[in-house]
Amino acid sequence: MQNYKSPVRDTLFVMNELLGFEKHYEKLGFEDASPEMVEAIAAEAAKFTENVLAPINAVGDEIGCKWDDGVVTTPPGFKEAYKTYCEGGWPSMTHPVVYGGQALPYSLSSSIAEWMSGANHSWAMYPGLSQGCIATIKSHGSKEQKDMFLPPLIEGRWTGTMCLTESHCGSDLGMLKTKAVPNDDGTYSLTGTKIFISAGDHDFSDNIVHIVLARLPDAPEGTRGISLFVVPKFNVNAQSEVLDRNQVTCGSIEHKMGIKASATCVINFDGAKGYLIGPPNRGLNCMFTFMNTARIGTGLEGLAGTEAAFQGALAYAKDRLQFRSPTGIVNPDGPADPIIVHPDVRRMLLTQKAFAEGNRALAIYCMQMVDLTLYSENEEEKQVAEAKLALLTPIVKAFLTETAQEATSYGMQVYGGHGYIAEWGMEQLARDTRICTMYEGTTGIQAIDLLGRKILGSNGELLNVFIKEVQDYCRSVRDKSQFNAWSNSIESHIDEWGQMTQEIAKRSASNPDEVGAASVDYLMYSGYIIVGYLWLKMAVVAQQKLDEGTTEIAFYEAKLKTAGFYFARLLSRTRSHASAIETGAENLMSMPVDYFMIE
Amino acid sequence: MQNYKSPVRDTLFVMNELLGFEKHYEKLGFEDASPEMVEAIAAEAAKFTENVLAPINAVGDEIGCKWDDGVVTTPPGFKEAYKTYCEGGWPSMTHPVVYGGQALPYSLSSSIAEWMSGANHSWAMYPGLSQGCIATIKSHGSKEQKDMFLPPLIEGRWTGTMCLTESHCGSDLGMLKTKAVPNDDGTYSLTGTKIFISAGDHDFSDNIVHIVLARLPDAPEGTRGISLFVVPKFNVNAQSEVLDRNQVTCGSIEHKMGIKASATCVINFDGAKGYLIGPPNRGLNCMFTFMNTARIGTGLEGLAGTEAAFQGALAYAKDRLQFRSPTGIVNPDGPADPIIVHPDVRRMLLTQKAFAEGNRALAIYCMQMVDLTLYSENEEEKQVAEAKLALLTPIVKAFLTETAQEATSYGMQVYGGHGYIAEWGMEQLARDTRICTMYEGTTGIQAIDLLGRKILGSNGELLNVFIKEVQDYCRSVRDKSQFNAWSNSIESHIDEWGQMTQEIAKRSASNPDEVGAASVDYLMYSGYIIVGYLWLKMAVVAQQKLDEGTTEIAFYEAKLKTAGFYFARLLSRTRSHASAIETGAENLMSMPVDYFMIE
Repeated sequence: MQNYKSPVRDTLFVMNELLGFEKHYEKLGFEDASPEMVEAIAAEAAKFTENVLAPINAVGDEIGCKWDDGVVTTPPGFKEAYKTYCEGGWPSMTHPVVYGGQALPYSLSSSIAEWMSGANHSWAMYPGLSQGCIATIKSHGSKEQKDMFLPPLIEGRWTGTMCLTESHCGSDLGMLKTKAVPNDDGTYSLTGTKIFISAGDHDFSDNIVHIVLARLPDAPEGTRGISLFVVPKFNVNAQSEVLDRNQVTCGSIEHKMGIKASATCVINFDGAKGYLIGPPNRGLNCMFTFMNTARIGTGLEGLAGTEAAFQGALAYAKDRLQFRSPTGIVNPDGPADPIIVHPDVRRMLLTQKAFAEGNRALAIYCMQMVDLTLYSENEEEKQVAEAKLALLTPIVKAFLTETAQEATSYGMQVYGGHGYIAEWGMEQLARDTRICTMYEGTTGIQAIDLLGRKILGSNGELLNVFIKEVQDYCRSVRDKSQFNAWSNSIESHIDEWGQMTQEIAKRSASNPDEVGAASVDYLMYSGYIIVGYLWLKMAVVAQQKLDEGTTEIAFYEAKLKTAGFYFARLLSRTRSHASAIETGAENLMSMPVDYFMIE
Repeated sequence: MQNYKSPVRDTLFVMNELLGFEKHYEKLGFEDASPEMVEAIAAEAAKFTENVLAPINAVGDEIGCKWDDGVVTTPPGFKEAYKTYCEGGWPSMTHPVVYGGQALPYSLSSSIAEWMSGANHSWAMYPGLSQGCIATIKSHGSKEQKDMFLPPLIEGRWTGTMCLTESHCGSDLGMLKTKAVPNDDGTYSLTGTKIFISAGDHDFSDNIVHIVLARLPDAPEGTRGISLFVVPKFNVNAQSEVLDRNQVTCGSIEHKMGIKASATCVINFDGAKGYLIGPPNRGLNCMFTFMNTARIGTGLEGLAGTEAAFQGALAYAKDRLQFRSPTGIVNPDGPADPIIVHPDVRRMLLTQKAFAEGNRALAIYCMQMVDLTLYSENEEEKQVAEAKLALLTPIVKAFLTETAQEATSYGMQVYGGHGYIAEWGMEQLARDTRICTMYEGTTGIQAIDLLGRKILGSNGELLNVFIKEVQDYCRSVRDKSQFNAWSNSIESHIDEWGQMTQEIAKRSASNPDEVGAASVDYLMYSGYIIVGYLWLKMAVVAQQKLDEGTTEIAFYEAKLKTAGFYFARLLSRTRSHASAIETGAENLMSMPVDYFMIE
């Protein structure tokens, strides 16, 4: 099995060379995040992911989590890896110094999160969930709640979860039934059953802090009657000491296709003691604050799968000998040539590489926008970043996870039959990555969010903000004749994108189904253009470095070649999406439901 | 979990109404295969698949095969299902009466094979492999060999395998190393290790007959030095009595992503007694005789996954309540509407349905060609069928299995997070079906076979034979104005197909890499056109039935609607493939191998 390597060089390329993170951090006042410091942290993170997380990835899949009478045991090595993680100070990176944090920027921690997922998707989910829980309490908790919960969570001594889904409602949270009844002491008693709770129970930490969506008595129906609660597994006092067991139990864990070392729990609340967080009935709004980062996080898991599958397929393609090159023997001393000589193997590898690097650029671009929304003191800059983030979040979530299905599938395909065998690790990657298009809002949900809520909902405003950036950039490289064809292609796509959007807006005014009918193709179409725009930018930067006489010739030449592949072979996928969008809703909606069934 | 239903009605539609199988069987002299008999056999087959095979599919996945000191045990119920299968006379359907067969046509048994795979992919592989073994002995065995091996194999008392792959060679069989040394009594002693041997060991039968590729002493290197042998697990005498154990052992079984109830064995031959079958050094040619049917068989497994995923997704989409329809409430008595009201859910369902029914038409069309090559006494008809089959086999193998990846993925996607959970069965379908693009020749291998060996290798002859059929048909429906748009679309695709082929031929004359660079896109492009042609034909037949006043209005109307969806949303995928093909080999081959690696 190929050892996972954290893509340090490529991440730093995107941060420093493509997106100017040195200045970005300086401007936001992160003196501690100097390029040297970023590089040092990255090196440590790479060591941790490669030496601690990657080696326990296969055993995690093989043994999985065990549930016994309400107690969940994680696979061998998982608990120890979490201890190492905490000792390294990783949980506290981005949090306030006052609660024990290191006050480093979100983007730095988030870039590294990709590598943790790439080395071990299941393991990385536990700390990932904690971050969501911390963010919720940090933003919406009272002073007492923060004092009580944040220090142990930020230290990593406690972990957290997000409890949203119930068996009858996943996407449509308006139907949720868990009840919260006020107690005399200001706390609440929560009763209900939540499902699909990642990290819902395990053996990593002294306590588990659940963020729970529930209804107050007499709350209005639907999404406007949902409130947010903090419910710890063990009750705690104001000094963050763990007391007696709360009425929270893990009823079972799911048997899943993948991420088998991530405990996906049914959590039963039987009159469990909880604390209201944020205003009553505004729980969903509070939750939505973190939708962007949670969805970028899922996009990163997809990206991580793409990168790991690329690495695995590349290693095999260079090693496996089978047939001779169509253009002449390249390995005369061996019985056959390595399969990387075959054009179709290269097509798969380049697809993986182009997605890994292009999608990474998009993800880190989004992280930069998140930084601005969190830390910028310039109101206009903040608003522009918020607008871009609103547009890009559903794309980064869905495009990075959908393309990851293709990339991890190629990971297996390059291996031929061996790709199907567990010991090579490629089939685990495909299984683990498969969840990413489903949880944290399916691709369909992201697509409706993008086209319906964001683009049509803003009358195209959000699209225009981003389009302006791309158009300005394309104009700025017009004099670089080498990039004319690519830049023109992006510009004409941008025109088509705008026209297509207007066309859908017009149609949807008379038929609301037109939005859903176009949505997923529209999202994928948008993703290909945006990643194309970033590939153009990366190519321009790479050429500049080569012109300046860099010694890393292979790295920058590879960027140019991969950009060339992207523009030749991947961007043209917009043709099929555009064509499908054009056809409208009728071909989907005109068939009566009864006609679907074969018998 | 949704119960699998055999698509009897749709299969009979394709056979009888689309492809005129009544006359086809009559002409070939199969008096026993009257429409009534076909229907009766289909009804029995549906009962067997639904009542015997489907109920043990999930347990097969959960428990899998066990290996213990060379002995393989199949999951509970598998052995018993095989007994029922034999008692039903299913193994003997297509075989000569003289060996205990029923002399029914290949196509009838093969249509039913789809259903067996759909109900239980793993289980269906055991009898599937036997059929390959029987066909080999039937065609290339001596009278003595046939007498010795065929009766128990055809009865089902023994089963068979095909032993090709070795650890260092899968696609490139020229490198295989297993040796066969002649003994004094005319038999051979085989020594070597084969991997990936499906049904290589199990507890179904009294004996297992291995068809083994091996080299004679002093055989030429490469593919011209490979011979074919029959090597039974237990030695046998001329009366087909099982004697002592032969030196054939199962060294281990693979841990795989799916088809866990199918034993994928490492088989060790340690001086095992075998019988040369067919001429020395011509083993690969003998094997190739069955390439067409083996590959159609794998295509059918893909189709089976598509159909089963469609059925599962449809059931859930009608049942699961989540949100309201964008155009107004349709389920006022419930808390939400079934998710089938959402356009994007319908997009997924219709994609599955259009592939299931369109691909089934293609598969059965190919079976009809196989019938002609096997049974026709008209030499010209036979040659045309052989030409069409040569062209269509790699397409049916790769297109049906690649589209099955999308269809089974949608099976999960429609379920959202629940799709990832084992108990719904959708993730098993995706895992089981994943193997189909890899074994029996990867998609890349099929694509090179299609474009390189078949199309360019015949100077376009094979393509022209098929194109003529399509053009003639399109001309014949020109007067049916309702179908003009679809028929024109097929005709212009046909023109483009021809031009594109000439263009590749021209480019590949100076650069052999151009074939591989175009191949997979070319294959998928071809598949979309051919299935489009069959959808056009199905729509014309459906309209005719409606015009004639059929009572099955939903069935035929659904055909028209699904055809409409196919022409609107799926056929347009040719745009991206055509565009990728145009770009040529340079964007794949110009990157030095060293540039691929990130660090």
